[in-house]
Amino acid sequence: MKSILILNGPNLNLLGSRQPNVYGATTLPQIQENCVEKADILNIKIDFIQSNHEGALIDALHGAKGVHDGIILNAGAYTHTSIAIMDAISSVELPVIELHLSNIHAREPFRHKSFIAPVAVGVIAGFGPHGYVLALEAMVAHLGQ
Amino acid sequence: MKSILILNGPNLNLLGSRQPNVYGATTLPQIQENCVEKADILNIKIDFIQSNHEGALIDALHGAKGVHDGIILNAGAYTHTSIAIMDAISSVELPVIELHLSNIHAREPFRHKSFIAPVAVGVIAGFGPHGYVLALEAMVAHLGQ
Amino acid sequence: MKSILILNGPNLNLLGSRQPNVYGATTLPQIQENCVEKADILNIKIDFIQSNHEGALIDALHGAKGVHDGIILNAGAYTHTSIAIMDAISSVELPVIELHLSNIHAREPFRHKSFIAPVAVGVIAGFGPHGYVLALEAMVAHLGQ
Amino acid sequence: MKSILILNGPNLNLLGSRQPNVYGATTLPQIQENCVEKADILNIKIDFIQSNHEGALIDALHGAKGVHDGIILNAGAYTHTSIAIMDAISSVELPVIELHLSNIHAREPFRHKSFIAPVAVGVIAGFGPHGYVLALEAMVAHLGQ
Amino acid sequence: MKSILILNGPNLNLLGSRQPNVYGATTLPQIQENCVEKADILNIKIDFIQSNHEGALIDALHGAKGVHDGIILNAGAYTHTSIAIMDAISSVELPVIELHLSNIHAREPFRHKSFIAPVAVGVIAGFGPHGYVLALEAMVAHLGQ
Amino acid sequence: MKSILILNGPNLNLLGSRQPNVYGATTLPQIQENCVEKADILNIKIDFIQSNHEGALIDALHGAKGVHDGIILNAGAYTHTSIAIMDAISSVELPVIELHLSNIHAREPFRHKSFIAPVAVGVIAGFGPHGYVLALEAMVAHLGQ
Amino acid sequence: MKSILILNGPNLNLLGSRQPNVYGATTLPQIQENCVEKADILNIKIDFIQSNHEGALIDALHGAKGVHDGIILNAGAYTHTSIAIMDAISSVELPVIELHLSNIHAREPFRHKSFIAPVAVGVIAGFGPHGYVLALEAMVAHLGQ
Amino acid sequence: MKSILILNGPNLNLLGSRQPNVYGATTLPQIQENCVEKADILNIKIDFIQSNHEGALIDALHGAKGVHDGIILNAGAYTHTSIAIMDAISSVELPVIELHLSNIHAREPFRHKSFIAPVAVGVIAGFGPHGYVLALEAMVAHLGQ
Amino acid sequence: MKSILILNGPNLNLLGSRQPNVYGATTLPQIQENCVEKADILNIKIDFIQSNHEGALIDALHGAKGVHDGIILNAGAYTHTSIAIMDAISSVELPVIELHLSNIHAREPFRHKSFIAPVAVGVIAGFGPHGYVLALEAMVAHLGQ
Amino acid sequence: MKSILILNGPNLNLLGSRQPNVYGATTLPQIQENCVEKADILNIKIDFIQSNHEGALIDALHGAKGVHDGIILNAGAYTHTSIAIMDAISSVELPVIELHLSNIHAREPFRHKSFIAPVAVGVIAGFGPHGYVLALEAMVAHLGQ
Amino acid sequence: MKSILILNGPNLNLLGSRQPNVYGATTLPQIQENCVEKADILNIKIDFIQSNHEGALIDALHGAKGVHDGIILNAGAYTHTSIAIMDAISSVELPVIELHLSNIHAREPFRHKSFIAPVAVGVIAGFGPHGYVLALEAMVAHLGQ
Amino acid sequence: MKSILILNGPNLNLLGSRQPNVYGATTLPQIQENCVEKADILNIKIDFIQSNHEGALIDALHGAKGVHDGIILNAGAYTHTSIAIMDAISSVELPVIELHLSNIHAREPFRHKSFIAPVAVGVIAGFGPHGYVLALEAMVAHLGQ
Repeated sequence: MKSILILNGPNLNLLGSRQPNVYGATTLPQIQENCVEKADILNIKIDFIQSNHEGALIDALHGAKGVHDGIILNAGAYTHTSIAIMDAISSVELPVIELHLSNIHAREPFRHKSFIAPVAVGVIAGFGPHGYVLALEAMVAHLGQ
Repeated sequence: MKSILILNGPNLNLLGSRQPNVYGATTLPQIQENCVEKADILNIKIDFIQSNHEGALIDALHGAKGVHDGIILNAGAYTHTSIAIMDAISSVELPVIELHLSNIHAREPFRHKSFIAPVAVGVIAGFGPHGYVLALEAMVAHLGQ
Repeated sequence: MKSILILNGPNLNLLGSRQPNVYGATTLPQIQENCVEKADILNIKIDFIQSNHEGALIDALHGAKGVHDGIILNAGAYTHTSIAIMDAISSVELPVIELHLSNIHAREPFRHKSFIAPVAVGVIAGFGPHGYVLALEAMVAHLGQ
Repeated sequence: MKSILILNGPNLNLLGSRQPNVYGATTLPQIQENCVEKADILNIKIDFIQSNHEGALIDALHGAKGVHDGIILNAGAYTHTSIAIMDAISSVELPVIELHLSNIHAREPFRHKSFIAPVAVGVIAGFGPHGYVLALEAMVAHLGQ
Repeated sequence: MKSILILNGPNLNLLGSRQPNVYGATTLPQIQENCVEKADILNIKIDFIQSNHEGALIDALHGAKGVHDGIILNAGAYTHTSIAIMDAISSVELPVIELHLSNIHAREPFRHKSFIAPVAVGVIAGFGPHGYVLALEAMVAHLGQ
Repeated sequence: MKSILILNGPNLNLLGSRQPNVYGATTLPQIQENCVEKADILNIKIDFIQSNHEGALIDALHGAKGVHDGIILNAGAYTHTSIAIMDAISSVELPVIELHLSNIHAREPFRHKSFIAPVAVGVIAGFGPHGYVLALEAMVAHLGQ
Repeated sequence: MKSILILNGPNLNLLGSRQPNVYGATTLPQIQENCVEKADILNIKIDFIQSNHEGALIDALHGAKGVHDGIILNAGAYTHTSIAIMDAISSVELPVIELHLSNIHAREPFRHKSFIAPVAVGVIAGFGPHGYVLALEAMVAHLGQ
Repeated sequence: MKSILILNGPNLNLLGSRQPNVYGATTLPQIQENCVEKADILNIKIDFIQSNHEGALIDALHGAKGVHDGIILNAGAYTHTSIAIMDAISSVELPVIELHLSNIHAREPFRHKSFIAPVAVGVIAGFGPHGYVLALEAMVAHLGQ
Repeated sequence: MKSILILNGPNLNLLGSRQPNVYGATTLPQIQENCVEKADILNIKIDFIQSNHEGALIDALHGAKGVHDGIILNAGAYTHTSIAIMDAISSVELPVIELHLSNIHAREPFRHKSFIAPVAVGVIAGFGPHGYVLALEAMVAHLGQ
Repeated sequence: MKSILILNGPNLNLLGSRQPNVYGATTLPQIQENCVEKADILNIKIDFIQSNHEGALIDALHGAKGVHDGIILNAGAYTHTSIAIMDAISSVELPVIELHLSNIHAREPFRHKSFIAPVAVGVIAGFGPHGYVLALEAMVAHLGQ
Repeated sequence: MKSILILNGPNLNLLGSRQPNVYGATTLPQIQENCVEKADILNIKIDFIQSNHEGALIDALHGAKGVHDGIILNAGAYTHTSIAIMDAISSVELPVIELHLSNIHAREPFRHKSFIAPVAVGVIAGFGPHGYVLALEAMVAHLGQ
Repeated sequence: MKSILILNGPNLNLLGSRQPNVYGATTLPQIQENCVEKADILNIKIDFIQSNHEGALIDALHGAKGVHDGIILNAGAYTHTSIAIMDAISSVELPVIELHLSNIHAREPFRHKSFIAPVAVGVIAGFGPHGYVLALEAMVAHLGQ
């Protein structure tokens, strides 16, 4: 049975209350529930973590090695600034899917730059909470290749 | 019954023979077949078009108005250079999903710029032919909101 | 009797339905009618063409040589990206007036760059459909110098 | 009866003697006469002012509020450098047409930038003294909307 | 017997009449004749195509696969803007020589950028019509390696 | 009774010993005392926090929601690099005043960029420890509007 | 008794009527009154000047030497363009506080650049008319050091 | 007898008291005296003007036409920002020598840009008050050619 | 007896397993051992710390004040992004040697920028684990000056 | 009988041993032999020089004046950095063909800039040693015009 | 008796024949004669050297230490590219005047950058051969301070 | 017995007298002595060369092939400008250590760019004369791998 880590970065704990016009009204626990349901259908295990600390996200990425088969990473704002997370992804040598709730390429220019993309399998952005479900499907397909 | 236009830009007709290390060995007709199968499952209609001509892609986008409910657009290299396609999307006022076979953000810098993203619902990139299936699912979910 | 080509680029066929807040509710055929009326007053002939294809616009520019005395060119989005149209203008050696419905310099930065301006007599932008009438007047005055 | 302020910036007082290959041989008083004639035809009043002082141009813009219905502004070189004039236009909340004798977009790159364009209705450039007449017509049409 | 496609881009059909000080007085049919003569000497077959349409050039590049052994490409202004042509060259996996009549590196800065060069064998620029003959020789030598 | 969070970022714990020529000799506890005194005068409550951890600052911002009425944020060097803190401010939807001891706009260019300014009410910089007192006054005035 | 010059730049005379959503409804004479009241409390003298002329602002800065002990400067749009005002500040060797009604760092990028900041004691921006009162307090504290 | 205008821009009236480490202790009247002495030796007439107003400098440049044979221009900070002064120089068609007391190319980067240089005969910078004497000699030599 | 802090940033805990072609097969504990051996030879004490948390590295730098005589800092990816670490180094006023296992200047451009270099004594990069030994020697020599 | 100087810049003496994957296995003496053979066929004289010294290349260019009819210049890395060589070419007023063994436009960005191109007749790049033969033919054709 | 080194860089040996429209018809030996005459009048010794070799110019600068009191340096194109000459000037700690025959700031942008200016006393540019005489006078005045 | 070339670039011959606050008081011969002593300890041979001529440095690099096992290169200012030296290093295929006396990354921005770093094993900068000794040790360790 495959295992996938779903890792969420800064401010995602506020989902539902944070700028609903940009990020929607669904909360992170509701997204986690959706992921658990989808994981059952896909017959995989998932782990679901959120932290506002760049270092904690790096620690979590390191911890995935030997435990998980793939990582879905919504790194939030660290996507655009963290070379350290980029390096952590390279270090653990697991497939990573870059996920964003909003379409970052339609927002401010500083959100167009991603340090994660060059070391990720692919990117899913702009589909709100449904993006998590798409990413799980995409990862399972990727691991099955 | 919803109808979705899947529009493919320059050089995608060569899929399968073109740089297989970047784009994979699946041909465009095979992708079309996959899309038809998925459309059956999702209970939608699809149209599947490819052209190497920027003008023909614009004409096709215009033609979608009043005919389709959404557009999945793999504009290939025109993604990075065509303001005219960007304007065509704005003009037809249909939801558009930007699709790429490869992870464009992990390639040359001139492929990081997208004129489509600012007028698209979202982006799916890097999942090869499977991306078409993900995009159909994403579009159906988007239209169902 | 002087003859003027009025050449319209991508997405202008959708005028009236396309983003009315930016481009107004007048359609391209209505604009053509206005131009015909104005041409009668100015005692000139006009030709009125629209295409979404960069190559077709270049062909039309080439075709103007020896046929028309001046060209009014609303190249739409190709204004900002087409060196080939710039070269076509240089090649035919006819006076060209650059025309835009919207005030492109008040919009996104990528619409501030014009490859047509350096080879044009002048620019008229921001006056909506009335700009065509102004451009006809300006061209007649220019040709009469 | 509508009233329009025609405001001229630095060095325009030298028109006729200044670089005739760029700006033509017509003098500013001759242009003013042309404007008066055109105003009679259009049944409007005009005011015609020139100053080399940025501050005086700002004062004149302020003075237009409640007195004029629209402003035709040939700000000369201040077009490219004066955020203060840009702010003055925003402050008086009157429609402004940006006017240039030469085609500024065909000249040195530093003349391509306009601080006036983002707060102007539209731009007319490259038609020499005739541009003033075109601008009057354009303003009357704009006010009549 | 080797076969070489000589592909000509936008505005080259006007050669001879277009800006003779930049491009010379020789017409494209005369160049074609020179190429035929040289091909006889080199004992090769040539095909000679011109189009103003980016899409048509891409189609022609695709059509060269399995038909020609090499391509001499004077892409005109599309050299500087077309990533789609760049990708078409990568897709067909034939050797391409980039050719220009004028010395593009001695002209405007936007002509210094080539999207073709990174996927071409080499570049010949600045030798006018004689460049075609040099390019045929260079291609034959390249194919003979 | 209004409550204000005063949040201090990296290296501010070293105030008094850190580069006294830039930041002065006053320590952070002394500043806290001044703030308490001022809060008494203004009849408000304050909370005073310092952390060198970006994640901890984000956690503190989140914690302010529903607890405080406004935030005075001296984010130190994170001002210039942290999009995550910017997003946290947007998320909590409380008024934030950006505060700096030194005049950051008179220092190295990389200190001129602030990710906090676009989501802040205003900026106070360059007044040393006294800036905290000014910021408290400014916030009370802002909340009283 | 300390004396402070409060110097106001272009368009500030229109305060109250100018873009109230950006600058508020208070007029400049009302701000002057507030300053006079505050000056009484602080036991200082103030002078209050406004001009739309860059040269007049420079003259006023020069005139402050030997007359005033400090300057509060709201240079409006000249903040972003006037090296001459920057040099005038350096020349008179009096402490200057840079003041803005709006939070310039949250507006267009060209308002982020300040030529005054490098020669100012500090910056207060975004607090509307209340900023003048804060600046007076800040200056008195600065002079008292 | 040749006549030369020596025109001085903003803040030069403060010479002697303004940042003596950069600009020296000599006052502008002393410089004027040196120029008068040198003019006697060179057997020329001079006019010596200073203004802090960009518009007044433009007016003075205009006034030089038909009155003076050459202009020595120390435009101070306007050197780096005033396209209007650049245009005024072009308009009057008199030889202009650009003069600076300090070596502007050894100072802040924004002082390296000169809008005057492209329309000036030459530049003399860095020699303090003695630069005026050198410039007079250079102008006399230039006029004598 | 001198004491030196050797501080290691993000992802260095994975040394040995992380991209061995870039970083080599030696683990961080092995490097620590080498440092201990070298420290014995040099007759100094060392402390050896690793953290993935930017804040923890700042805390560690602060903690070095009054405890250690110098710091060898391999800040990993934070080298290129952390102004906060730069400020921490300035704050503690201890000599710092910037150390990198790989030659960062031969890698991606974003690794060429160092916020540490401007406040460091010197840089040693590209010598793999042996760089730690060189850095200890360099620090001892520096402290002995 | 025409005479042509073939001038070779830095590191070309190592041809054959230097990075054979980029520059091929042919040595410079072998290239010289090929050139001598070709010169016999073309009935011209050639001179063949190599130096690693920028100054020596300039001296050689100067020496060509009055001795040679044209210059083939492979300036190696000085192509991208030497304005002095550019000026030397302008000074001697002889036709120069810019030659490169590799396709410099397909390599690092700093090799895309050429200071020679703006003063050269044309460019031949990417054809290895055969480029010398092509350049001789191109020069003879150019001189025969 | 003061001694001054006049050092001339690349291509200045061709003066008189090189692009006379830019550099004039006077030869370098004639300039040397003028300098000798002027030196007699000023009662100083001069040395006059020219080289096309950057290294030889550096050697000459080094050799000036202890021999000359000042250096007049016309470094030609090396002005814009040679940090090594910049460092040589800093090393010898003699006053240097930067001299150019043409007004480099009115030419191509790459001639606007000077590595010499930041370490020079001042700049004289645009006065042709007469510039050498002006520079001698300026240096004597500078040394006499 | 291993042999190492220590190659020194422009202005290093002036060490000891050149800007002692930047480069220290030790002379180059003293450094050479230190290197000889260290070489004895390390049981290697060294060669020690200095030149101010870029071409001579390239010649020396070429000469190292087959003679030395590694090169320590302090290229001085040529580090930042010489692609020709970069190419020479690539050509000789020997390991090179880039050495600088000062910490170039803490100085002017133009000293942050190194054309040597991309082809060097590693960099040692900022340790003054002791850097040579460190570099010898680093090279011996590198060669021993």
